[in-house]
Amino acid sequence: MSTGFFGDLAPIPYAGPDSTDPLTYRHYDKDEMVLGKRMEDHLRFAVCYWHNFCWPGTDPFGGDTFQRIWMAAGGDPMAQARLKADVAFEMFTLLGMPFFTFHDRDIAPEGATLAESNANVNAIADVFERKMDETGLRLLWGTANLFSNRRYMAGAATNPDPDVFVYAAAQVKNAIDVTHRLNGANYVLWGGREGYETLLNTDLSRELDQLGRFLSMVVEYKHKIGFDGTILIEPKPQEPTKHQYDYDVATVYGFLRRYGLEDQVKVNIEQGHAVLAGHSFEHELGLAAALGIFGSIDINRNDYQSGWDTDQFAMNVPEMALAFYEILKAGGFTTGGTNYDAKLRRQSIDPVDLIQAHVGSADAIARGLKAAVAMLENGRLKAFVDDRYAGWNTPENAAILTGDSTLEALSERVHGRNLEPQPKSGRQEYLESLVNLHV
Amino acid sequence: MSTGFFGDLAPIPYAGPDSTDPLTYRHYDKDEMVLGKRMEDHLRFAVCYWHNFCWPGTDPFGGDTFQRIWMAAGGDPMAQARLKADVAFEMFTLLGMPFFTFHDRDIAPEGATLAESNANVNAIADVFERKMDETGLRLLWGTANLFSNRRYMAGAATNPDPDVFVYAAAQVKNAIDVTHRLNGANYVLWGGREGYETLLNTDLSRELDQLGRFLSMVVEYKHKIGFDGTILIEPKPQEPTKHQYDYDVATVYGFLRRYGLEDQVKVNIEQGHAVLAGHSFEHELGLAAALGIFGSIDINRNDYQSGWDTDQFAMNVPEMALAFYEILKAGGFTTGGTNYDAKLRRQSIDPVDLIQAHVGSADAIARGLKAAVAMLENGRLKAFVDDRYAGWNTPENAAILTGDSTLEALSERVHGRNLEPQPKSGRQEYLESLVNLHV
Amino acid sequence: MSTGFFGDLAPIPYAGPDSTDPLTYRHYDKDEMVLGKRMEDHLRFAVCYWHNFCWPGTDPFGGDTFQRIWMAAGGDPMAQARLKADVAFEMFTLLGMPFFTFHDRDIAPEGATLAESNANVNAIADVFERKMDETGLRLLWGTANLFSNRRYMAGAATNPDPDVFVYAAAQVKNAIDVTHRLNGANYVLWGGREGYETLLNTDLSRELDQLGRFLSMVVEYKHKIGFDGTILIEPKPQEPTKHQYDYDVATVYGFLRRYGLEDQVKVNIEQGHAVLAGHSFEHELGLAAALGIFGSIDINRNDYQSGWDTDQFAMNVPEMALAFYEILKAGGFTTGGTNYDAKLRRQSIDPVDLIQAHVGSADAIARGLKAAVAMLENGRLKAFVDDRYAGWNTPENAAILTGDSTLEALSERVHGRNLEPQPKSGRQEYLESLVNLHV
Amino acid sequence: MSTGFFGDLAPIPYAGPDSTDPLTYRHYDKDEMVLGKRMEDHLRFAVCYWHNFCWPGTDPFGGDTFQRIWMAAGGDPMAQARLKADVAFEMFTLLGMPFFTFHDRDIAPEGATLAESNANVNAIADVFERKMDETGLRLLWGTANLFSNRRYMAGAATNPDPDVFVYAAAQVKNAIDVTHRLNGANYVLWGGREGYETLLNTDLSRELDQLGRFLSMVVEYKHKIGFDGTILIEPKPQEPTKHQYDYDVATVYGFLRRYGLEDQVKVNIEQGHAVLAGHSFEHELGLAAALGIFGSIDINRNDYQSGWDTDQFAMNVPEMALAFYEILKAGGFTTGGTNYDAKLRRQSIDPVDLIQAHVGSADAIARGLKAAVAMLENGRLKAFVDDRYAGWNTPENAAILTGDSTLEALSERVHGRNLEPQPKSGRQEYLESLVNLHV
Repeated sequence: MSTGFFGDLAPIPYAGPDSTDPLTYRHYDKDEMVLGKRMEDHLRFAVCYWHNFCWPGTDPFGGDTFQRIWMAAGGDPMAQARLKADVAFEMFTLLGMPFFTFHDRDIAPEGATLAESNANVNAIADVFERKMDETGLRLLWGTANLFSNRRYMAGAATNPDPDVFVYAAAQVKNAIDVTHRLNGANYVLWGGREGYETLLNTDLSRELDQLGRFLSMVVEYKHKIGFDGTILIEPKPQEPTKHQYDYDVATVYGFLRRYGLEDQVKVNIEQGHAVLAGHSFEHELGLAAALGIFGSIDINRNDYQSGWDTDQFAMNVPEMALAFYEILKAGGFTTGGTNYDAKLRRQSIDPVDLIQAHVGSADAIARGLKAAVAMLENGRLKAFVDDRYAGWNTPENAAILTGDSTLEALSERVHGRNLEPQPKSGRQEYLESLVNLHV
Repeated sequence: MSTGFFGDLAPIPYAGPDSTDPLTYRHYDKDEMVLGKRMEDHLRFAVCYWHNFCWPGTDPFGGDTFQRIWMAAGGDPMAQARLKADVAFEMFTLLGMPFFTFHDRDIAPEGATLAESNANVNAIADVFERKMDETGLRLLWGTANLFSNRRYMAGAATNPDPDVFVYAAAQVKNAIDVTHRLNGANYVLWGGREGYETLLNTDLSRELDQLGRFLSMVVEYKHKIGFDGTILIEPKPQEPTKHQYDYDVATVYGFLRRYGLEDQVKVNIEQGHAVLAGHSFEHELGLAAALGIFGSIDINRNDYQSGWDTDQFAMNVPEMALAFYEILKAGGFTTGGTNYDAKLRRQSIDPVDLIQAHVGSADAIARGLKAAVAMLENGRLKAFVDDRYAGWNTPENAAILTGDSTLEALSERVHGRNLEPQPKSGRQEYLESLVNLHV
Repeated sequence: MSTGFFGDLAPIPYAGPDSTDPLTYRHYDKDEMVLGKRMEDHLRFAVCYWHNFCWPGTDPFGGDTFQRIWMAAGGDPMAQARLKADVAFEMFTLLGMPFFTFHDRDIAPEGATLAESNANVNAIADVFERKMDETGLRLLWGTANLFSNRRYMAGAATNPDPDVFVYAAAQVKNAIDVTHRLNGANYVLWGGREGYETLLNTDLSRELDQLGRFLSMVVEYKHKIGFDGTILIEPKPQEPTKHQYDYDVATVYGFLRRYGLEDQVKVNIEQGHAVLAGHSFEHELGLAAALGIFGSIDINRNDYQSGWDTDQFAMNVPEMALAFYEILKAGGFTTGGTNYDAKLRRQSIDPVDLIQAHVGSADAIARGLKAAVAMLENGRLKAFVDDRYAGWNTPENAAILTGDSTLEALSERVHGRNLEPQPKSGRQEYLESLVNLHV
Repeated sequence: MSTGFFGDLAPIPYAGPDSTDPLTYRHYDKDEMVLGKRMEDHLRFAVCYWHNFCWPGTDPFGGDTFQRIWMAAGGDPMAQARLKADVAFEMFTLLGMPFFTFHDRDIAPEGATLAESNANVNAIADVFERKMDETGLRLLWGTANLFSNRRYMAGAATNPDPDVFVYAAAQVKNAIDVTHRLNGANYVLWGGREGYETLLNTDLSRELDQLGRFLSMVVEYKHKIGFDGTILIEPKPQEPTKHQYDYDVATVYGFLRRYGLEDQVKVNIEQGHAVLAGHSFEHELGLAAALGIFGSIDINRNDYQSGWDTDQFAMNVPEMALAFYEILKAGGFTTGGTNYDAKLRRQSIDPVDLIQAHVGSADAIARGLKAAVAMLENGRLKAFVDDRYAGWNTPENAAILTGDSTLEALSERVHGRNLEPQPKSGRQEYLESLVNLHV
């Protein structure tokens, strides 16, 4: 029985690029074959719980604007959680997306004790199991909210108080258990409070060790219970903290190496977080692939000129094309997928806005994917790059990189041959125009 | 015989805090004992060659403003290099600083071939040897300029053309040889072109391997010739490139781990580069110390609101206090030091500006050092931090970090004890006021 | 009768610079004569209501951390408002500050209708009248909160719905009435929602006209009721909106000129807002003075590397010195003052943190003021500037600026005299060192 | 006779959207009718002199990379200037663009005196006159370079030394004369040095007055000689200076009002400068239109994550669509046009890169124009906005804005009708998807 929240909205059909109806897909055709796979299996879209069903439209200067039916003050929290789940699955079904994602605290209210909180989470997980069975929806990943409650104000794993570390460990255990039960394809850790506000009260070195040990325990536990999803870290440079330890992909990589976890953990890269760290999204994707830790993505768009996490729906096709070009070059997703970590602007208060935003963004992303495929199939970009580095393919030059050379030997080569390298054009504008052939 | 460039300026004396003469030191008293060491041995000031004697005052929209006597168009380059060396040592002597630093191309003109360029460098190194002997000046570090010549426009070690890699290797070999000959305490690599302008023409993964191999050869060569200075990488996030591989301390650390060099190479941290990467200077210092790779610093000040490397003289005492607090906590400098990587504003065209800027900045830095010492000796900051983490000292909690625990065990602890951690005040404003007791 | 909130804290005494007790003033001695005025009358400190007594410690990723006694869920709102007022005046008294500031919604709960809301505000204003009479506290300014309630989500004066404009007008009328009744020295308008999220749904030109008309009505009403406080606009570039119309001082000036209000309205400049707009605080102060619209300041500190309004307590003495140097050059405050628009870090949860933060910041500001006075009295900075422009004092050159010249005449002068100007050193580093003599 | 610089390149033809040849136009069809005008007459493309023919590929860390034939060291400057003019007009012709733009110092070398410099400029202007006559090329605007020479290091009109002001006036007179002679459609002033490095040596108020007087003289001179082109100011927030007085459109508007010039001067808006000031390009365009000062544009693209003026070729179609939507809503260009203020990446060293970059960018801009036209013709965006503000059309509400209302009257209305406005969805995501129908 419908909650009625979405009125008489019908599931969103694919209607082709000529459609002008904002409640149809124009480019996201889940069954279209792309590079030998269905588009749905390429993109692996997931709809998130938090922005859509938990955030009430507040911002630092304003109160709730959405006033959803399951948010009424004074309601029974578990009844509201069940209503929220009903609406959520109605939305997933209307959109026809294959996956969803959640934090433990998104789906069920916090209780008076952790035991009670866990019981609440588990009760809603029962609801999910049934609904997933009915609808075929799958869980891309679960995660624990270790940042909203005031107990975590000074960190979870990196808290100066070991009791908080212990509490966080217990909460994460339950979140992994639930994710495992629901056959989650991954488990994510975002360290929103794992950082500092001021170095003056912080022991940086100790906190890094705490974080390393915490993550190791997560990996150990995963193996112990036979969870075969991927453990993912989601980098972000700052906000809410002044400095967050999982700053960006490169920082996470060094951290994983330091604690011997580089083969056990991958990254979930968010467009907006990349931008806040001073990187392009495609940089973070390409770097993660190069370092062997590419896992999954949170798709959204950050206003380049707002210094906080704006989490807008991705709508810019050229940006999506460059991102998926890196993803396809990296072999595409395995356990990962494309999670919408995007929220409505707080003025978009109608239920239909929720649907329309996902639809419009799915189309922009699908266009990006198709453009990336065209870039790959066209081959001119790759051919240019291959040719640019072709000099390294000679045995003499290849040997340099395998360690068979020394500064002296190379110095001899310069002097002996009177070597004076001649620069070649990098042709950036030409390459950018090549991209424009396809977007 | 004096070049006359500085007119009748006399060496800058220490005149105490009440002096209002801008050509006296008010706080930098090199012989003052601080924490058991002479201030000079704490700070290990070095004056750089490039900004002071090579940069003509240009900016992206304007031509040379300084028009120094050794820069006249049409002059004999080697004669000008010798005149420049004379002026440089006059300035070092007027300032009474213990160290200097240079790039190979700062000190001598590029020749028609690398052999000729090397010969030019070596000829000026002969001059340096004599002058160092006469004055007692020492070399904090040398480095090779692998970024100005157009051959390096697409990178040195990371160039798509292996000939450029080879050429760079040969140039670095000579720069290390010269640094070794002059008893340099360190050798620095700044990868100004080791990055990319666009991913569209770049093989990120290959370029990282090239850079790793290059650095390994540098380390191998250092050991071979018995150079016992420290090899330092200087991180910078971007500029001139869109993205530079040695982005920040955390990135360099991951890179060193990837190529097995974390015990061989340390970092030279520049205030302005830290700021451009989105970090406070003290963050980068504290992180390098935590990761065991703290080496040396380039001191300057970046305008927080200009998105390029402004390289201003450090004048802000509170910033210096926080920086030296981290340095002192890390044990102070060993081979490293405080290199002025600062340049005059291009309107500061008088020779006396060169002197006065170093003097004013030395005083600000000395005040920062003395404040940091007071913060340490006062002990209230450290006591606060120790107390904040004291809970970790119990055997039960200490055991968590040594690997003797699991998510299940910690979960049991929460449930068994009905654990609910109570937050404690982080007291940031109080701690900031404590700092203000000393600055 | 005390609320007990601050325990047994006694009023903060002035204890001199050698005090190390964080609950004493070390530099803020309200009765110290500075440039012929008591320090209290120079600084005109005001403590704000919103950050201290209304904000519960939330941030975009976390819930309330403070949990003050007057914030308990389910309490009687007006009783809580009275308790809050009691605590507020206890704090004002402990600090010994002369002024306070508030938004209408800070002091009393919103009712079911505007009439009810106004009644609530007026009832607390009665409380204020009595307490102000008892304590001698004064109101620096009042303002209306036109940004938190969802009715204002798309703007107040600039809302596409004229009913919202009308409602805002009615709310402002009451807020001015209350401010007038309490003898407020100023009335402030901060247009937190007067901007846009996307141009796609915005009629920029019409919204500017709406804002102009709204402000004109405020000015008309002020005169009508005989309120002789100053009307102040507080610029901010963005946040919460993507773009806020009162972007910075220069923008507000153009706006005032456009609507003929430049003689009627001044600006309330906030340090953090200046920084977010890409300006130094002293720039905004100096520019407002030059344009004749300098009014008052909101003092705080924005983290230069966090792209949102961090509203930290001002603790940096050199920044304060440069700011007060501009303020003193502009003649100091008339009706304006120094309003603490600063909030505790959300981890600073103890009542004593509220006190200590204001005390520590007052000392930093007092040191800044005293340094600025020393800079003025020393006179070297001013003498340098006067000398730099001295060429304009000749009759021939002065005439250029009074309009008695033309391009042709000046061209003739160049050719006739073969004029070739010679650049003079701008001596920035020297001037920065001069500042360091005093901070 | 050809210079041979471009080898055997033929003029770039329009070849339609299916062309994959980077040396054809795919979307820029100058004769295509768009909204009743030829596309050429809509866009009014201009090719600039400075980036293409004067900049040698330097950056703050690197020397020249382009080494054009007219830049050889030791050549005869006037002969090189003539060769440069030949190559420039060859390029203009190959591209088939209707306009060009230049600074006085771009086209001819500086002489020993201003008289000599003027003579050089005028000699090349003779060349231009002939070439323009032959080719039909037109001048969009001319301008004077008041920023490169060291005499201007502390400003031109805002220099502390009146002799520099006088010199600048004389130089501008000649630049206007030349622009007038060549029938320039506009004359531009970009105040690259009209700002400050530090307030410590600056009299802000006086410098603004100097700038106001200078601009007034320009306007007076324009009328005197009968030049009927538009005088344009080009805003930029900073770089090279720390702060530039013509910060952004809003700042320039206030400045023009202050000096009574708002009807005499318009703005030339650059995409990259808008971005550096914290604005979107479309914001600056829309605001200029609202304020009645929209004039012309400099088209390029700034890397949102590089804090300096990157001046890349515009390649992002969605950005261009939003920009031209504002331009079309403002009525399109009158005397203004689309000037390429874009430069090759310094690695793009081949002559063909110059051509290909303009072609690729022209296509991106043409697609943006066509998308903007479709957005206009479709009408859904405009209809949404009109409907959103429709409440203001009632006589009662319209009267508010014409000044026939007061705070009291509006307050009465709220209380009398018990007014409680109900928010309506702003529908941002829907509107962004509407845009995506067309780009």
